[in-house]
Amino acid sequence: MPWRLVSTDADFDERFAALLGAKREQASDVDVAVRSIVARVRSEGDAALIALTRQFDQLDLTPATMRVSEAEIDAAFEATAPETLAALRLAHDRIAAHHRRQLPKDDRYTDAIGVELGSRWTAIESAGLYVPGGTASYPSSVLMNAVPAKVAGVERIAMVVPAMRGALNPLVLAAARIAGVSEIYRIGGAQAIAALAYGTETIAPVAKIVGPGNAFVAAAKRQVFGHVGIDMIAGPSEVLVIADGDNDPAWIAADLLAQAEHDAAAQSILITDDAAFADAVEAAVERQLKTLSRAETAAASWATHGAIIVVPSLDDAVPLSDRIAPEHLELAVADPEALFARLRNAGAVFLGRHTPEVIGDYVGGSNHVLPTARSARFSSGLSVLDFVKRTSILKLGAEQLRELGPAAIELARVEGLDAHGRSVAVRLNL
Amino acid sequence: MPWRLVSTDADFDERFAALLGAKREQASDVDVAVRSIVARVRSEGDAALIALTRQFDQLDLTPATMRVSEAEIDAAFEATAPETLAALRLAHDRIAAHHRRQLPKDDRYTDAIGVELGSRWTAIESAGLYVPGGTASYPSSVLMNAVPAKVAGVERIAMVVPAMRGALNPLVLAAARIAGVSEIYRIGGAQAIAALAYGTETIAPVAKIVGPGNAFVAAAKRQVFGHVGIDMIAGPSEVLVIADGDNDPAWIAADLLAQAEHDAAAQSILITDDAAFADAVEAAVERQLKTLSRAETAAASWATHGAIIVVPSLDDAVPLSDRIAPEHLELAVADPEALFARLRNAGAVFLGRHTPEVIGDYVGGSNHVLPTARSARFSSGLSVLDFVKRTSILKLGAEQLRELGPAAIELARVEGLDAHGRSVAVRLNL
Repeated sequence: MPWRLVSTDADFDERFAALLGAKREQASDVDVAVRSIVARVRSEGDAALIALTRQFDQLDLTPATMRVSEAEIDAAFEATAPETLAALRLAHDRIAAHHRRQLPKDDRYTDAIGVELGSRWTAIESAGLYVPGGTASYPSSVLMNAVPAKVAGVERIAMVVPAMRGALNPLVLAAARIAGVSEIYRIGGAQAIAALAYGTETIAPVAKIVGPGNAFVAAAKRQVFGHVGIDMIAGPSEVLVIADGDNDPAWIAADLLAQAEHDAAAQSILITDDAAFADAVEAAVERQLKTLSRAETAAASWATHGAIIVVPSLDDAVPLSDRIAPEHLELAVADPEALFARLRNAGAVFLGRHTPEVIGDYVGGSNHVLPTARSARFSSGLSVLDFVKRTSILKLGAEQLRELGPAAIELARVEGLDAHGRSVAVRLNL
Repeated sequence: MPWRLVSTDADFDERFAALLGAKREQASDVDVAVRSIVARVRSEGDAALIALTRQFDQLDLTPATMRVSEAEIDAAFEATAPETLAALRLAHDRIAAHHRRQLPKDDRYTDAIGVELGSRWTAIESAGLYVPGGTASYPSSVLMNAVPAKVAGVERIAMVVPAMRGALNPLVLAAARIAGVSEIYRIGGAQAIAALAYGTETIAPVAKIVGPGNAFVAAAKRQVFGHVGIDMIAGPSEVLVIADGDNDPAWIAADLLAQAEHDAAAQSILITDDAAFADAVEAAVERQLKTLSRAETAAASWATHGAIIVVPSLDDAVPLSDRIAPEHLELAVADPEALFARLRNAGAVFLGRHTPEVIGDYVGGSNHVLPTARSARFSSGLSVLDFVKRTSILKLGAEQLRELGPAAIELARVEGLDAHGRSVAVRLNL
């Protein structure tokens, strides 16, 4: 049974806080193991990668076979059905088109006293992309992570993907080629993150690592952070659907289950102003669960983390939604724009009854790598901005230095930084 | 003696790699202590803050005296010399003017098939600002951290600053008022970070925490990351000066020392194409060191981490600079624009002989919170973007869903995600 809350109940605040605070992930303490793996790859390079891949992935590699060959990628391409390739290409083109609009503009200007200021954006030189193995090896995620890097102008994109007993998902290879990934290595786990961060004889290091992974991968990313950049550490996926009573309950139930099928720790929440509609959705979820291939996962997620919140009016959904700060927010209401205008915290919003969140997972054009676990309060989805960096620019002539210098000298003085003051004073003959 | 490298020497590559790889900070292992402090504040709130402040700062607080009163800030203002206030205001106004240009623009558009897409930026609701105590309690840092938040539209900025035995730097209070900080609490260390992240009876939690601090503060920020946002973990400061032989050696020496006086772990590097000029700068550094109040710190930094690299021509400085990826980069050359156009990795650039880096520390208008330790390869200085977040927007009508739906269903099918496919199919009567 999902959580059922009514915002006018006396214990609502307490139960809503409990819903927000409920842990959805068990913290796995793999830090010590990961530290030793990272240190080993850092000191032994390829030899460590080969030994660890044999141990964890039951796969024998050599430096020569570590990299996936062009012939293998060709074969994966040929093995992929034309309609799948067409869908991947459509997704790629739409993602690329949307992300090109995110390219930041340089700024350069001269202020009233003649000081030149500015910001210049440049692409990072290289990025590493982690792709999980097994059933979570999604071609759509390859596109979502690689395309923003490519659009940003990153010259080298090195992908790693574990190949348990040698098996690779051909669709992942096909998606990598479509996205313009430069190099693919059949390694995974903390050892792959260490290789990307520090480099080995075969794999050149990268400046930033992105992509989802298990607890070992997440811990390794945290450990190498600072030496290289990393993206967010993603938690289980989540959706909040705000729906009025005029929706087809089957549509909304399907949306809730699309999130729940990802992971038993995923979370689907419905907020509605119509208690009868809430009942109908709950019944539809039960019905649809019976025919899902991933029914066990979806049922576990829905029973443990699913929630239905009934509010007197949709106005009351606004503060609740902002506290949840959902990764995905569907507004299945008559006037979604008006509601959206009043909302603040969400990774991605899907407006109207004909915009199921799943469109954003694949072919909408927006990115599906989004802030989870309430982090949309302070962070954003993956974008081109994650693959560029800004250099601030300052340029003074003698006249501007004379004008601004004395204030700088004064502040250096009160901060007790003599050499700071002198660096200005020496140029003004003070 | 600073490092001295000549790029044409046989052992240059090896020595340059050693310079880049040299550790400037001892990792202090305070994680366990910090974990217990954070847990205690989280469970005991104000009582823990009061006990820990008594223990670490020798200061007795009550919930009522934790917050710095308006009267105290008034008094700090009145105690500040008019020329200092004027310098702070000039700095504030220039920083605010520059940062207003960083406000990102929303984007909303309809593509060729009628799908509406977009990005909407909103300010984070609240930010915490850590300000160190003692000699590193800089009013300029208060401005640099608070102004971007204010410009972004953050409604609530809560500042924390430790008051050892009750002492607070009045200039820090004055700068906080000028910058529009909403609340100031006289607490510090890991306990202050925990209070900002989780809240106590007296201090409401914030969404993101920024600002520099010691090893305890840095470890606490890492530990609360995810629950709240954090800025970068800043390392010791650094400057790279690329200078031709036409500079006054005293000017360049002063710039190198301005960085070195911050911290014995700071780093100042000169790259020049003129060996005689290099000698002259080195001699000038020695001369100027004699009259610095912070001579001991500056001398330690220069002797251990300082470096002079002589190259045949300034062209050869380009790849070296990009590998160093300096926090601050001064281009004291005849044509700084041409050189800058060829460079890629730097937190901030200072163009020409009349732009000492110190101007950027105080009154240039650009931010002085910048990526250290080579992280300018993948990250940027503090900006308005650190205090806003983006919601991606997707809106389809029935027609667009019919057009894009089949590709989404195909990708869901090959990814084995039935409920994803159904969420689209159910709307298309498939």
